[in-house]
Amino acid sequence: MHKKNFAVILSGCGHQDGAEIHEATLALWAIHKNGADFQCYAPDIKQHHVLNHITGQEMNEQRNVLIESARIARGKIASLATFVPESADALVIPGGFGAAKNLSSYAFDGPKCMVNSDVARAIKAMHAAGKPIGALCIAPVILAKVLGNVILTIGQDPATADNLAAMGARHQPAMQGEIAIDRENRIVSTPCYMLNSRIDQIADGADNLIRAMLDLMN
Amino acid sequence: MHKKNFAVILSGCGHQDGAEIHEATLALWAIHKNGADFQCYAPDIKQHHVLNHITGQEMNEQRNVLIESARIARGKIASLATFVPESADALVIPGGFGAAKNLSSYAFDGPKCMVNSDVARAIKAMHAAGKPIGALCIAPVILAKVLGNVILTIGQDPATADNLAAMGARHQPAMQGEIAIDRENRIVSTPCYMLNSRIDQIADGADNLIRAMLDLMN
Repeated sequence: MHKKNFAVILSGCGHQDGAEIHEATLALWAIHKNGADFQCYAPDIKQHHVLNHITGQEMNEQRNVLIESARIARGKIASLATFVPESADALVIPGGFGAAKNLSSYAFDGPKCMVNSDVARAIKAMHAAGKPIGALCIAPVILAKVLGNVILTIGQDPATADNLAAMGARHQPAMQGEIAIDRENRIVSTPCYMLNSRIDQIADGADNLIRAMLDLMN
Repeated sequence: MHKKNFAVILSGCGHQDGAEIHEATLALWAIHKNGADFQCYAPDIKQHHVLNHITGQEMNEQRNVLIESARIARGKIASLATFVPESADALVIPGGFGAAKNLSSYAFDGPKCMVNSDVARAIKAMHAAGKPIGALCIAPVILAKVLGNVILTIGQDPATADNLAAMGARHQPAMQGEIAIDRENRIVSTPCYMLNSRIDQIADGADNLIRAMLDLMN
């Protein structure tokens, strides 16, 4: 049987300015655990900024989203500009502020945000091909912006749920480890660190998301 | 019942110049999964160097081990200089080249390596108190250097096994997900990425290690 291949879009390395490390690692873990494989991608662009993850203060440095993402991917990563939807059976976007600062401008512009053009292209192409898309934590805001009227969860936060609605999406509340499934659009989402969570609950959410995405391929 | 508390020593963020991200994340996951809690520590020192994780080439930057480690710990981290053994029931050291370049000089000096003084102090104090110590991947070389005659695994690599012996330790071969237990010294180790591994096998090794360490507390 063909081993299903997940394209994973990373947004840096560290939740304050890049991809959330536990969510990204546990998404990759869930892919392997469920008998599938992955290829990571990230845009080859500068990070919006670099934050000291102890103090939260900006550091006087510049880092590249693709190069930093390679730390999580152990080098198994390519520029998102090279992504072709034919190479993947599904697309996953972990959370962290990188999704809202590097993949999109949601952290600054809310519902009026811009989405990186390669990210938008990948999402539209996979959606048009009827291939499942998964989004963790804050990453569902990107799907709302690109696809509009789809069902998503970001957990319980009313302000973020309002923003999803402002972009045309429908919010479905969820608790730790739970997922929301939009069967028509083949989209699965899970709140992860949008809720106060233990790491094993992040793993449960990632595992439930990947399994639901595999089910949607049948 | 008292929730067991694991002190986890990180060595940066990224396997080529810091802590291996999957091993560190999955050690923290296994701690939460098994009903315990953790506090991360790292030495407040400069990284030996910064490597581009795509090309493997050195980058013209400086990074701090404690600040970069905070990306994995989500800020729940303290300088290793502040560690007191009374605060922890067990000590865990994930792998990655950070263990061999920042926590020690093993990557450069082999069996003649130096170990960071705060790392050595923490290991000696926990060992003297009869509290379990766990080491993943290449981190067992640090325990061999500090403690000498203990049983450890680094998987199957003959050169690294010879180096363990040169430091006075006894090597026990192990495969993916397996652990070596030294009951007398309360030390558990697992090879992780010292072997070619899927990420779910890294999780199995981390989970087996943490469960064995909890058993050693009874």
